[in-house]
Amino acid sequence: MTAPGVGAPPLRYGMVGGGPDAFIGAVHRAAARLDGLWTLAAGAFSSNPDRARAHGVAMGLPSDRAYGSWRDMLDGEAALDPSERIQAVVVVTPNHLHFEPARAALRAGFHVVCDKPFTTRLDHAEELCRVAAANDRLVCITHNYSGYPMVKEARERIARGDLGTVRKVVVEYSQGWLRTLLEAEGQKQASWRGDPAQAGPSSALGDIGSHAHHLAGYITGQHPTSLLADLVTHVEGRAMEDDGTVLLRYDSGARGLLTASQIATGERNHLRLRVYGSEGALDWLQERPDRLRLVAPSGTETIVYDGVDGLSDRARAHLRLPGGHPEGFIEAFANLYRNVARTLQARASERAVGPFDDDFPTALDGARGVHFIETAVHSHRSGAWVDAVYAAP
Amino acid sequence: MTAPGVGAPPLRYGMVGGGPDAFIGAVHRAAARLDGLWTLAAGAFSSNPDRARAHGVAMGLPSDRAYGSWRDMLDGEAALDPSERIQAVVVVTPNHLHFEPARAALRAGFHVVCDKPFTTRLDHAEELCRVAAANDRLVCITHNYSGYPMVKEARERIARGDLGTVRKVVVEYSQGWLRTLLEAEGQKQASWRGDPAQAGPSSALGDIGSHAHHLAGYITGQHPTSLLADLVTHVEGRAMEDDGTVLLRYDSGARGLLTASQIATGERNHLRLRVYGSEGALDWLQERPDRLRLVAPSGTETIVYDGVDGLSDRARAHLRLPGGHPEGFIEAFANLYRNVARTLQARASERAVGPFDDDFPTALDGARGVHFIETAVHSHRSGAWVDAVYAAP
Amino acid sequence: MTAPGVGAPPLRYGMVGGGPDAFIGAVHRAAARLDGLWTLAAGAFSSNPDRARAHGVAMGLPSDRAYGSWRDMLDGEAALDPSERIQAVVVVTPNHLHFEPARAALRAGFHVVCDKPFTTRLDHAEELCRVAAANDRLVCITHNYSGYPMVKEARERIARGDLGTVRKVVVEYSQGWLRTLLEAEGQKQASWRGDPAQAGPSSALGDIGSHAHHLAGYITGQHPTSLLADLVTHVEGRAMEDDGTVLLRYDSGARGLLTASQIATGERNHLRLRVYGSEGALDWLQERPDRLRLVAPSGTETIVYDGVDGLSDRARAHLRLPGGHPEGFIEAFANLYRNVARTLQARASERAVGPFDDDFPTALDGARGVHFIETAVHSHRSGAWVDAVYAAP
Amino acid sequence: MTAPGVGAPPLRYGMVGGGPDAFIGAVHRAAARLDGLWTLAAGAFSSNPDRARAHGVAMGLPSDRAYGSWRDMLDGEAALDPSERIQAVVVVTPNHLHFEPARAALRAGFHVVCDKPFTTRLDHAEELCRVAAANDRLVCITHNYSGYPMVKEARERIARGDLGTVRKVVVEYSQGWLRTLLEAEGQKQASWRGDPAQAGPSSALGDIGSHAHHLAGYITGQHPTSLLADLVTHVEGRAMEDDGTVLLRYDSGARGLLTASQIATGERNHLRLRVYGSEGALDWLQERPDRLRLVAPSGTETIVYDGVDGLSDRARAHLRLPGGHPEGFIEAFANLYRNVARTLQARASERAVGPFDDDFPTALDGARGVHFIETAVHSHRSGAWVDAVYAAP
Repeated sequence: MTAPGVGAPPLRYGMVGGGPDAFIGAVHRAAARLDGLWTLAAGAFSSNPDRARAHGVAMGLPSDRAYGSWRDMLDGEAALDPSERIQAVVVVTPNHLHFEPARAALRAGFHVVCDKPFTTRLDHAEELCRVAAANDRLVCITHNYSGYPMVKEARERIARGDLGTVRKVVVEYSQGWLRTLLEAEGQKQASWRGDPAQAGPSSALGDIGSHAHHLAGYITGQHPTSLLADLVTHVEGRAMEDDGTVLLRYDSGARGLLTASQIATGERNHLRLRVYGSEGALDWLQERPDRLRLVAPSGTETIVYDGVDGLSDRARAHLRLPGGHPEGFIEAFANLYRNVARTLQARASERAVGPFDDDFPTALDGARGVHFIETAVHSHRSGAWVDAVYAAP
Repeated sequence: MTAPGVGAPPLRYGMVGGGPDAFIGAVHRAAARLDGLWTLAAGAFSSNPDRARAHGVAMGLPSDRAYGSWRDMLDGEAALDPSERIQAVVVVTPNHLHFEPARAALRAGFHVVCDKPFTTRLDHAEELCRVAAANDRLVCITHNYSGYPMVKEARERIARGDLGTVRKVVVEYSQGWLRTLLEAEGQKQASWRGDPAQAGPSSALGDIGSHAHHLAGYITGQHPTSLLADLVTHVEGRAMEDDGTVLLRYDSGARGLLTASQIATGERNHLRLRVYGSEGALDWLQERPDRLRLVAPSGTETIVYDGVDGLSDRARAHLRLPGGHPEGFIEAFANLYRNVARTLQARASERAVGPFDDDFPTALDGARGVHFIETAVHSHRSGAWVDAVYAAP
Repeated sequence: MTAPGVGAPPLRYGMVGGGPDAFIGAVHRAAARLDGLWTLAAGAFSSNPDRARAHGVAMGLPSDRAYGSWRDMLDGEAALDPSERIQAVVVVTPNHLHFEPARAALRAGFHVVCDKPFTTRLDHAEELCRVAAANDRLVCITHNYSGYPMVKEARERIARGDLGTVRKVVVEYSQGWLRTLLEAEGQKQASWRGDPAQAGPSSALGDIGSHAHHLAGYITGQHPTSLLADLVTHVEGRAMEDDGTVLLRYDSGARGLLTASQIATGERNHLRLRVYGSEGALDWLQERPDRLRLVAPSGTETIVYDGVDGLSDRARAHLRLPGGHPEGFIEAFANLYRNVARTLQARASERAVGPFDDDFPTALDGARGVHFIETAVHSHRSGAWVDAVYAAP
Repeated sequence: MTAPGVGAPPLRYGMVGGGPDAFIGAVHRAAARLDGLWTLAAGAFSSNPDRARAHGVAMGLPSDRAYGSWRDMLDGEAALDPSERIQAVVVVTPNHLHFEPARAALRAGFHVVCDKPFTTRLDHAEELCRVAAANDRLVCITHNYSGYPMVKEARERIARGDLGTVRKVVVEYSQGWLRTLLEAEGQKQASWRGDPAQAGPSSALGDIGSHAHHLAGYITGQHPTSLLADLVTHVEGRAMEDDGTVLLRYDSGARGLLTASQIATGERNHLRLRVYGSEGALDWLQERPDRLRLVAPSGTETIVYDGVDGLSDRARAHLRLPGGHPEGFIEAFANLYRNVARTLQARASERAVGPFDDDFPTALDGARGVHFIETAVHSHRSGAWVDAVYAAP
């Protein structure tokens, strides 16, 4: 287990959202902490100023950096000496509250780590791309599943041609936690995800289909050029779709099949991706993330585990432990934070970014995800194939 | 291991097609033989008369019942005393050669066991339905996967409501054997399956998608009312589609996803069906047919194995061995032959058919399968959702 | 699916034991029937003459060959014309009733297929070896697990050195069906297996440990030279051990670990064998018999399935279906019957036995198994390591 | 993801050993860091004073707390104000160097976290028990596998009687990394583990068998009363055993089977424990730590996953994420650090220790482990069963 970045002082970040009721905020904090490369230095943990400040103090922040709002945080931090000031803002609010704090943070010169989907409207995502570029700030969208070492191994194997021509991509993200009308019971996670005003135009595709879409693009290096979507709401009383399937076509001739569900009863967090090529196939499952199943034309399977000899340099660079010592969700999530930290450290010291250290999802990935959601919703409404090419502005 | 039907003399059948190069003919014969309920009494094993006769003799038939053609067989057998004459004709020719011998056999008073798809045209399938009914003859279409005990267990569990309301059906049949242009190399199985004149309008959907379609209907008891298909030919030079995906909608509100592939490199015979209901899910995989995976809303899985206590009577009736003694493809196939035999024995002795003994795919199932193939091809050509209701004539 | 031995008329056998209450008799009959190489021509299915005759008739035998006892059967068959007479006797009685009918059958010139363990006393097994040799008759002991194609693949891979030097053999046969005092409830299978007078000196080791012992010898080609056993009776009131573990040492320096249990609650028929060599490892599990797991020093696993390219000729010769079409317990059992049939056919026609056709367990294997059981019991009683070399007489 | 202990300032620890070449030191540091409950405040990371100091500085310690030796560290820290001084010493040196720093640390009033095996001699372990008690200091031995939530679930299920009477315990810890004479190639981990002067009397049993032994005791709540061991060195030139099997007997009548190997080629970190009881069985595998397999007498399996409803409070208390979000080795390891921290916080604030917060291996567990190793070595040398009762002094 290498001690990455040892020696350099940790980067300081401020968090927007992510109070005690939130699930993902705590994951971000643990991921940031794991490698000792980041330290939580400020926060605005709620949209309620009093609660925001109280949460901040409870998390160990000094009271003057436990802010009542993200606006206060940006102002307060800007007033500090650069040696004290946060360097990045982590945005973990509900979807509709990503855009404004992210834009303000970028304009104020902070780097941004933002949960997905980037925004609820494509024009917003594209504006953030422009603002980030204009201010030379870095954006990381936490499509965290791409942080798993064996996902990176999959990407490398396809890139180097092990599978021949990619023909069929099957990606599935199934969960069952919304099989009942949980949002009617006041469950906070369900409530905002099921509200179009907070979640954006899609629930199943927006919340988890967007991860599946990113993963397929990350592993294959290809993006669909047309698609047909079928969305459905199974649970009565629900305002948004809780299940959707998208057929994908690629310029290369490949076809894709993406299905996402929140009503797949009993599924916990079943994200699986298979790629069939002319010379082989691969198969990865998030619930068993340490293994990559490779299939030869003969039908013989090879199961490669993380930590064993023979992995690509890219996979190896994202591992902490030898084979057989399971690394999981937090470790993969931490790989994004680690890479952002290393990239920022390299920039700060005017060194070249290390190999693979720039391997994290960017603002462009975020915008592409938002475009995918909008395009799929459009296809579903028309019941027809639609153009799916995304041309970055 | 019960000795089914012991005591009654075995039923006599004649086979059309299924010579030494054929794969499925030998399977039919082994399946018929396994329980001692059938005996091969005649055959016309090739479209070439000399080869047909030679094969028959080589298989141990007396030379006068090793016929040169199916027409000769039907004539020759009709001339025999009923106590000698075959009672059923088994049709295992390429698809385009099912219709004529099956029709003639039915007209001549023989029962028919026919491989799938029933015919290459819906009007043909429907004509066979009428002829069978008119002659009071039984037809069994060998959608053999429905013969597995744990498939039957799945059907029973859904029928009795264990899963609540069925919401999502995901069925996949993936093979990789046609990832190259095998038909150009003279491989007999590939050649006729890849030739529209012999296989009918579809290859991937016709050959294996039709099994997936039947299985979904058998297990859920529901049939789609509209569908959208996307078919594709990945291998250059191929005349037919080698991969296809079909989105399904049901009147109940359920949705389905069916994908079939012959270019899923490395997949051997990957037929998997999952059903997500409001109260639970189930999952069955043909390559591991002894187990049925049931998932509770909590995510806890229950794996039920064949041969253990607690199975439904229907599943139990189709088992031969105690738990942990794997039964496979031939045993499942044999369940169809066993049930047909028992049904015929009951008819012959004017007894009621035993419970579950009429559990085999019929002519109507065959016609429905042909209708599905035609409808999917039509949807693919139009790129749109189409009506998929099948109303038997 | 090749039609093995097609053309030759099937071999005729008579069965001793195996009436309707018996489990294994029906398996033997199905296995014999599967390939069309054997036909049941006579039988003495019970030690009760009336029941024996009634069972025979119910199984479709003519009444003059449905014998009242095995002695009657041997006499009656000897009186028939050789073209009618049975050629082999299949002994499927409880263990203590193997010796006498097998000896008489061999003396009378019949070949013998006998269930395991061969006998309940080593001197008996060795006498049968001598009688078989003296009469030039063939004996097959149905250690049926060695009939699985992937077991044969394992044997070949070790024989050709893929694993380097064999260092550690771990073989486990666990069942849970005797976790309660089933023999006190009149369950027939449990009753005789739990009675020393019928089962011999051991229950868990005798009934299933002997399979594990044979399998380890078959796959590795090595036999232990010393051993230490620890046997135990967990269920109160039971007359014999229901669980046992044996440590094994081999001359090569390899070590073995064999554990057998009838009280491993919930285990159905869990026979698993792993071999660790200096250059690799292999792993086979009877409940998933179509796969052989091979492990490289790096930890990368290769899963080879039956029916795929790249298998050894020996494995391939024992397969009936292409990959992904599960073959199971009956098919493996049938491989023993098929090989015995082919060997006898070759002898009858003075042809050389085909490659692998003599691959079935012999009288020597049977005697070795009985010796193992006796040696383990002896070690357990003394609580010490004992010599385990078996020198055939 | 709860933020455990939030609010309280982190505990300060100093590390002995665990420099950049060491594997386990970095694991300890990450585990300590994960929950934000500990901070590395001092260290003596090498037996070479210059390297020790350089490593400390490189890890971000101030130079006056990057000590040249553990003696210096204990002296230096004792001289600091209690509000600055470390509160615990973490000992991650090779085995033979645990005793002296641990004893000195305890005597100096520091709590101790020590890797396993506790010591290389039982008298040393027992002396540490006494010193800890005399100084009222806490000792935690990092038998980290007991930190997995599903291990705790297993323990709870047995304790509450789900399995009935425990009959058979099978525990296996197999690795393959020492299949060659790695210690001759200068690999640091292999070198000291293969040297009796540094590792103690046993290698395979000492390094990994001791984990298996602890796990079996933790889960079943039982300790063996007699044992028989067979140890073996497979790799030529190796000074210590690289494989060993131990038969265990318990007072309750239960039997155990423990096997540990470093030459199980291809195994990565295969620690598996099965328990068979009169009413059910359970099965846990470290390489798939999120699941607990439970087997009913019928053979039906129930797979319980971490994070799902229905887990015991003890398991739940040791989870950080919802189901389907894999937690791994570091998280389990961190559970020990978390519990020690919470126990110390409770002591400091004179609160009762929270439920399950005292759930970590103690000095007594450490001594019991050393006794097991010594007893097994003694049995192996004598080739006989030996008494295995451990009576704490």
